[in-house]
Amino acid sequence: MYSLGINFDLTYITVGIVDSEGKILLKESIPTLRYRKFEEIIRDMAQLCIGVVKKAELDMDKDIDFIGIGCYGSIDNKNGVMIYSSYFGFKNVRIADEMKKYISNIPIICENDANCYALAESRIGATKGLKNTVIVTIGTAISGGIIIDDKIYNGKAFGAGEFGHHVVVFQGEECECGRNGCWAAYASTNALVRDARIMAIRHPESLLFKMVNGDLRLMSFRTPFDAAERGDKYSAQIVANYKKYMALGLINIVNVLQPEAIAIGGKIRKLGRDFINDVAELVAEKTFGQYEEDKKTKILMCDIDYDAVIIGATMLKH
Amino acid sequence: MYSLGINFDLTYITVGIVDSEGKILLKESIPTLRYRKFEEIIRDMAQLCIGVVKKAELDMDKDIDFIGIGCYGSIDNKNGVMIYSSYFGFKNVRIADEMKKYISNIPIICENDANCYALAESRIGATKGLKNTVIVTIGTAISGGIIIDDKIYNGKAFGAGEFGHHVVVFQGEECECGRNGCWAAYASTNALVRDARIMAIRHPESLLFKMVNGDLRLMSFRTPFDAAERGDKYSAQIVANYKKYMALGLINIVNVLQPEAIAIGGKIRKLGRDFINDVAELVAEKTFGQYEEDKKTKILMCDIDYDAVIIGATMLKH
Repeated sequence: MYSLGINFDLTYITVGIVDSEGKILLKESIPTLRYRKFEEIIRDMAQLCIGVVKKAELDMDKDIDFIGIGCYGSIDNKNGVMIYSSYFGFKNVRIADEMKKYISNIPIICENDANCYALAESRIGATKGLKNTVIVTIGTAISGGIIIDDKIYNGKAFGAGEFGHHVVVFQGEECECGRNGCWAAYASTNALVRDARIMAIRHPESLLFKMVNGDLRLMSFRTPFDAAERGDKYSAQIVANYKKYMALGLINIVNVLQPEAIAIGGKIRKLGRDFINDVAELVAEKTFGQYEEDKKTKILMCDIDYDAVIIGATMLKH
Repeated sequence: MYSLGINFDLTYITVGIVDSEGKILLKESIPTLRYRKFEEIIRDMAQLCIGVVKKAELDMDKDIDFIGIGCYGSIDNKNGVMIYSSYFGFKNVRIADEMKKYISNIPIICENDANCYALAESRIGATKGLKNTVIVTIGTAISGGIIIDDKIYNGKAFGAGEFGHHVVVFQGEECECGRNGCWAAYASTNALVRDARIMAIRHPESLLFKMVNGDLRLMSFRTPFDAAERGDKYSAQIVANYKKYMALGLINIVNVLQPEAIAIGGKIRKLGRDFINDVAELVAEKTFGQYEEDKKTKILMCDIDYDAVIIGATMLKH
């Protein structure tokens, strides 16, 4: 038997056929085209499911026992409803019911995408074997998932784990959420790119500026890391600050939740393990309490890439 | 049958005889005199227990079925060990074993005091009937307890819930924990007094200054509230800022944990329900996500006073 795992993202919908070990047999994507009516989006999602199953020469009724959907936003997993999703602009949209118009005989569960990510990591990834863990995905935004006692912790209105939106700099940079100084406004890759651009403007003599030929649109979150490696002192400063901001929020999470481990995923994984280890060292230095090494929260890198949402979605079954 | 609940605090040890409904039959305190050897402190604690039971004309063996100890610090509740307690200066102190030298036949469980507080509130207090709740005690410091799925959530090394030590102001005021800008450095009553003193120094023409006759040692956390009520604009500013800082940390907790309710306890309760309601309004305004009223985390005032630790300690039994 297989399950279908769906990553229902802002830009793409990806469907994967996943076996009971969490291995992906086949996956396919279509663009979300998110400004459409949700009924159209879900229709395409269902057709993608049907198409993928056919392509794998499987039978939906006989070979697929479950569909899990990892969605961007706050998701009522009991009723398969997207309660609220800022970028989609959806409110109280009944995703599972809409899917059942096309695929009626298979149980469907929806869940927040970061929560699916956290579940996959805790079952077969970096946090495997631990009961209380957190994952933080860092990319253009910061998301998170909390696993307590081996289960997803959802919070009252299915919105827990919004680590990106805890303020670390009172009256700091504006955040998309309406507050100022959120962690996401300092530790997301968008924030890193912003800070690198500002530094480049201030120092046109810097390698940072030269590496983008003065065209700041070309600045990526990796540029300051590359320039720092080649000896640019301004970039080294950006990198050092970025690590500090990253550690700042992680220490806050440790002091509040003290999970067994925090695994970091998302685009930031591309910076590699050395980067994560540097941040982990900063976290260990400043964490509250004088804990022995084996009692400290481990700071890890997520094992699974973007597929974690697809894989984790199929694990909602258990 | 009764249980003994102990509040093992920095300044006092209080023992209460508590019935199965959480009612205190009798309680007595002695000074902790915390700079002594821990064996001496625990000996006095045990003798206080024996004395209180005698005074109530009860029999330790026949009438007392459990002893719960709420302690300041990180407590390994499995082994009755105080792992770490900054102000005590204790490390890995075996409290339960030491108590058993004097009272051998009764089960003893130790737990962090704020966790006991949270347990009492969730069983018979402000958060009664809710499964996932947080309490935050605000006084000279800020402590907290997390209840998830009706149970105390301890964290990896029994140190979860250190809400006071999450940074809200990057590179802000020094905190006793070694970091800068912790929430406790802005929202504790100590921080409030500090800010009121600074304001009074800047404005000797203010009512705030006059109310302490220029002797800043006399400034209490209530002085700016009293002065603001009598029309002092400088105090009104202190009060408004303090509410903002308080809301800042609470919103962070809501965005990360989204509990059903956060109940606020500690010395700050003396400011009354209007104060808590003002703060709750600020929290609702800025919380992430557009949730309907009934889906928002409630901000409440704790029902039970300092006795909550004693009462909650006896609830560790279940």
